[in-house]
Amino acid sequence: MSVASRPLPKSIATVSLSGTLPEKLEAAAAVGFDGVEIFENDLLTFDGSPHDVRRISEELGLAITIFQPFRDFEAMPDTIRSRNLDRAERKFDIMEALGTDLVLVCSNTQPAAIDDDARAAADLFEMAERAARRGLRVGYEALAWGRNVSRWAHAWNIVQRADHPALGLIVDSFHTLALDDDPSGIARVPAEKLFFVQLADAPLLKMDPLSWSRHYRNFPGQGELPVTNFLKAVLESGYEGPLSLEIFNDDFRAAPARQTARDGLRSLILAEAEAGRGPGLPSPVSFDGFEFLEFAVDEQAKSELGGFLKTLGFRHAGDHKSKAVELYRQGSVNLVLNAEPDSAASEHFQMHGPSVCAMALRVDDATRAVDRAEALLYGTWRERTGEGERKIPSVRAPDGTLVYLVEPGSSGHTIWQDDFNLLPPSGQDGELKSIDHVAQALPEGRMDAFVLFYRAVFGFVLERLWELPDPYGLIRSRAIVSPDRSVRLPLNFSESRKTATGRFVSATAGAGVHHIAFATDEVERSVTALTAAGAPMMPVPANYYDDLDARLGMDDTTLAELRRFGLLFDRDEQGDFTHAYTDSFAERFFFEVVQRRGYQQFGAVNAGVRMAMQAKLRDHSAIEDLMN
Amino acid sequence: MSVASRPLPKSIATVSLSGTLPEKLEAAAAVGFDGVEIFENDLLTFDGSPHDVRRISEELGLAITIFQPFRDFEAMPDTIRSRNLDRAERKFDIMEALGTDLVLVCSNTQPAAIDDDARAAADLFEMAERAARRGLRVGYEALAWGRNVSRWAHAWNIVQRADHPALGLIVDSFHTLALDDDPSGIARVPAEKLFFVQLADAPLLKMDPLSWSRHYRNFPGQGELPVTNFLKAVLESGYEGPLSLEIFNDDFRAAPARQTARDGLRSLILAEAEAGRGPGLPSPVSFDGFEFLEFAVDEQAKSELGGFLKTLGFRHAGDHKSKAVELYRQGSVNLVLNAEPDSAASEHFQMHGPSVCAMALRVDDATRAVDRAEALLYGTWRERTGEGERKIPSVRAPDGTLVYLVEPGSSGHTIWQDDFNLLPPSGQDGELKSIDHVAQALPEGRMDAFVLFYRAVFGFVLERLWELPDPYGLIRSRAIVSPDRSVRLPLNFSESRKTATGRFVSATAGAGVHHIAFATDEVERSVTALTAAGAPMMPVPANYYDDLDARLGMDDTTLAELRRFGLLFDRDEQGDFTHAYTDSFAERFFFEVVQRRGYQQFGAVNAGVRMAMQAKLRDHSAIEDLMN
Repeated sequence: MSVASRPLPKSIATVSLSGTLPEKLEAAAAVGFDGVEIFENDLLTFDGSPHDVRRISEELGLAITIFQPFRDFEAMPDTIRSRNLDRAERKFDIMEALGTDLVLVCSNTQPAAIDDDARAAADLFEMAERAARRGLRVGYEALAWGRNVSRWAHAWNIVQRADHPALGLIVDSFHTLALDDDPSGIARVPAEKLFFVQLADAPLLKMDPLSWSRHYRNFPGQGELPVTNFLKAVLESGYEGPLSLEIFNDDFRAAPARQTARDGLRSLILAEAEAGRGPGLPSPVSFDGFEFLEFAVDEQAKSELGGFLKTLGFRHAGDHKSKAVELYRQGSVNLVLNAEPDSAASEHFQMHGPSVCAMALRVDDATRAVDRAEALLYGTWRERTGEGERKIPSVRAPDGTLVYLVEPGSSGHTIWQDDFNLLPPSGQDGELKSIDHVAQALPEGRMDAFVLFYRAVFGFVLERLWELPDPYGLIRSRAIVSPDRSVRLPLNFSESRKTATGRFVSATAGAGVHHIAFATDEVERSVTALTAAGAPMMPVPANYYDDLDARLGMDDTTLAELRRFGLLFDRDEQGDFTHAYTDSFAERFFFEVVQRRGYQQFGAVNAGVRMAMQAKLRDHSAIEDLMN
Repeated sequence: MSVASRPLPKSIATVSLSGTLPEKLEAAAAVGFDGVEIFENDLLTFDGSPHDVRRISEELGLAITIFQPFRDFEAMPDTIRSRNLDRAERKFDIMEALGTDLVLVCSNTQPAAIDDDARAAADLFEMAERAARRGLRVGYEALAWGRNVSRWAHAWNIVQRADHPALGLIVDSFHTLALDDDPSGIARVPAEKLFFVQLADAPLLKMDPLSWSRHYRNFPGQGELPVTNFLKAVLESGYEGPLSLEIFNDDFRAAPARQTARDGLRSLILAEAEAGRGPGLPSPVSFDGFEFLEFAVDEQAKSELGGFLKTLGFRHAGDHKSKAVELYRQGSVNLVLNAEPDSAASEHFQMHGPSVCAMALRVDDATRAVDRAEALLYGTWRERTGEGERKIPSVRAPDGTLVYLVEPGSSGHTIWQDDFNLLPPSGQDGELKSIDHVAQALPEGRMDAFVLFYRAVFGFVLERLWELPDPYGLIRSRAIVSPDRSVRLPLNFSESRKTATGRFVSATAGAGVHHIAFATDEVERSVTALTAAGAPMMPVPANYYDDLDARLGMDDTTLAELRRFGLLFDRDEQGDFTHAYTDSFAERFFFEVVQRRGYQQFGAVNAGVRMAMQAKLRDHSAIEDLMN
């Protein structure tokens, strides 16, 4: 398969988008889809004729790729058979008015359906014969919960048996992959008999396929099904028709249609590229951790946050040459406090309060990363810079914050030397070595958009889902990490507005980072030093240690150490993890000090203790005492 | 079993309630629970000692009924066995400090667990032996997803085999009923070996029992499991210990703890009564439809709503003797428009805008209904009435609105004759005969509370769940109906705030009724008459009829009639249903005209058409035109 092959037409089912039918069509066209599937329910609730739909679509430059679904047709008892054929004729009338030649017949779900492939084939032949008389075509698709036909190969057998030129096969990645069925044989279906291809992903859930399909589908790359493998088999068949998204998702039904549509198109561009079709994408870059985090502050918050950071061992290491921006440093950690008026940061501060407005990642090729982001329709941005300052390429994340991409300067100069008046180092460096992970709180319904962004643009990998008990509701948490694990980003969301995560999202109008973890080589010594410097470390309840002992069987020395230093502990197959949290800054974000010994997770089992303590401390914040 | 037997102690697990551990204990005590299960996670996140928990509980008058769970103990390989026994000793320490003698051991879920009942029995014997030395006891419970032990009878076999006086069985209705396992044999477990009983209900969902259990449990009577049957078997055994609620529910985690706790206690009172234990409850009353609906209005809204009602064929039939209240009548339908200042209705209007603030149901025994409500801890209320006016008993629904209970007056006088100056009837009566159903929009997370209220107080029956596609998100809808079906109340909620239901809940700050359906004997004639009188009937898109024809195979005459009169249609096994909607009043509530011919549902398949049309009409409301 050539890397520079022609991309396939891209289509989306109207059911995937929120709004009235005209709103859905407008959104699909606006973001650049070539066509739409008209979902029957969207048509029947539309107060205009099918011909009006055709006209609107034509004006928007959208093809109507298919009309769907036609349900419960084949292999019904005789009394219903002729009625079903009448029903088909009336749908053909609508298709003619819509100006589409293809209808999707999904496998029968009725208890009355007869388990007889010859019968099904004969019925589909008759329908195809009638369709052909009008220049129309019929595609047959196996529903994962079809009464007698639930797998693509079974549907294909019936299509072959019917053997009518106007009858072909339709495949949908969800129906195949939800049953853990093998899609590889699709490669051997003749391309002219593969009439249409629908792509959908989904998180792995243990529930019946119908409920799973109706509520939890998402775009390829947002879920956990091997959609790329499925698509590879489809492309191997020689299929040249549209790739179409049919996504039933409760969140998508309520989200702005253009935003959803744009993510859909991105997901198809990514899937096509990963399957080796179309113009291809620049390959993902390599990462080497965080270069800096940038906080949007005003002058007061800059001073307060600077004071807090000093208790954590950071030193004020420089001032920007032309802006009201300060640099704090420790180990390889750079924290930028941006109080420049009339800047993107000040806009961010106005809207979200003191918060992380950008992160910078170290990459081997910033230009390639931005090229890839642009090919995936993500916005890129360049900061206003002073004379002689370096331009840092960046990509806009789904929440509007910037991800800067910093590569090693060929001059050997760092961005800091170029843009900052650096202050001379004073005394020894602090305890903290690097940024271990940066956790973000997402508004409800935005997880899929963030996962697609980090996976598609950066090639990050999604980790397992954790459910964390906040005293006032559950938090759901999944980390997405760079393949080398040098960048680790836990993503959190909560349906309850009363949890720490929910409160954060409300208080900050959706801003993301709420938790920054720093790595140390010796956490006991570090916590001692931080505490001595006045850092407000979060106390740990004594019961935690009783439970830890019972749960993990700690040796007495270790347990005594943990108690003494107020540390939390976890262990997995790969190693162990010792960590401590600070209280939060201005009820916005908090910090963590961690020491990993092979351990690859994030101490999720201890999050409940943290959230209970944070709930308790909320009303008498140690930070506020520190500030006053 | 005597009807007036001693009630069993009532307990709730701390995991069932929102908040910190002290908040949970306070809520359980405040509503009247006798005891609590201390859920381990709530203890380990509590910043105080186990002894503090004991002290707080004692001060609140709460027994600590059990400490739970102790996981993955029995039948582990030798290397882990002695560690697990050490772990048990440390839990015994905590139990002594808590002052509880019972620990719950749930069946092992670890892949390493050995499938050997003798081994499990030997381990549990050893643990019980160690517990007995301290005067403690061990209860063994089968988890539905236990590795080798998942059914109560299997756990009971192991307990019998171990044969230690300090070892007994614990049963939980969810674990038994989720597997569709038969609880009847629990009746033959000797009462002294049944150490503890947990009750939980759940909606019927097709998903893996672990996820189902962790997120969707609810209180007995709120779900669909046969918990009463389970409890009957328990009581037959002679069990005299606590009935305890262990409910993992995402909504409960976020809801006010006292509100949840009160519903929990109500559910136990109901379950106990239905199983024939305790003091018993007055039996549910019989219903005979709606006596009236009361709208909270101000003078302007009274005039506007009155005008709207006249287009529907209602006549102004009387004025209250002492209050600013008007009566509108048609057939057996009474609508009360209450603009009395400084009344409960005016408070309701201030808070929610023009809205239904009360409904009145016709019952055979109002006093018994109120007695039952009070025994179930629901509030009752009596209206301020003028000299000589009748007092109407009422019960407060979970949203604070009143349900009046009207019984046939012994004097033959109606409440209207007593309280109103009735105007003489003028000409012939209108088209509409009675109230067919009244639909309510519920805030998120409140469905369980409403279901419990109508089931417990009135003996109503819950119908199937429908998912209705609004253009901007899904609506979930379930009707709850009186056993004779004379009172039908669809309950709707939506996770999306952009749907009609979601917008209604936001706009009205949670007020309930948004849709009132009136029955007629001849819907074509009625709709013609209403339209002629200026009623703003909702138009139906032409595509609807094409689909209806294809879907149900209508005869041409019927289809032409439906089109001509702008009617919607549905059919089930029992009959058919023809109906039409009005546009909404002030974007609050709308009306429907329905004709049933045997049909028992609510036209849910047509709700999508309605919601799409309402979304379209929202910006240019016909009602507003009518009012201007």
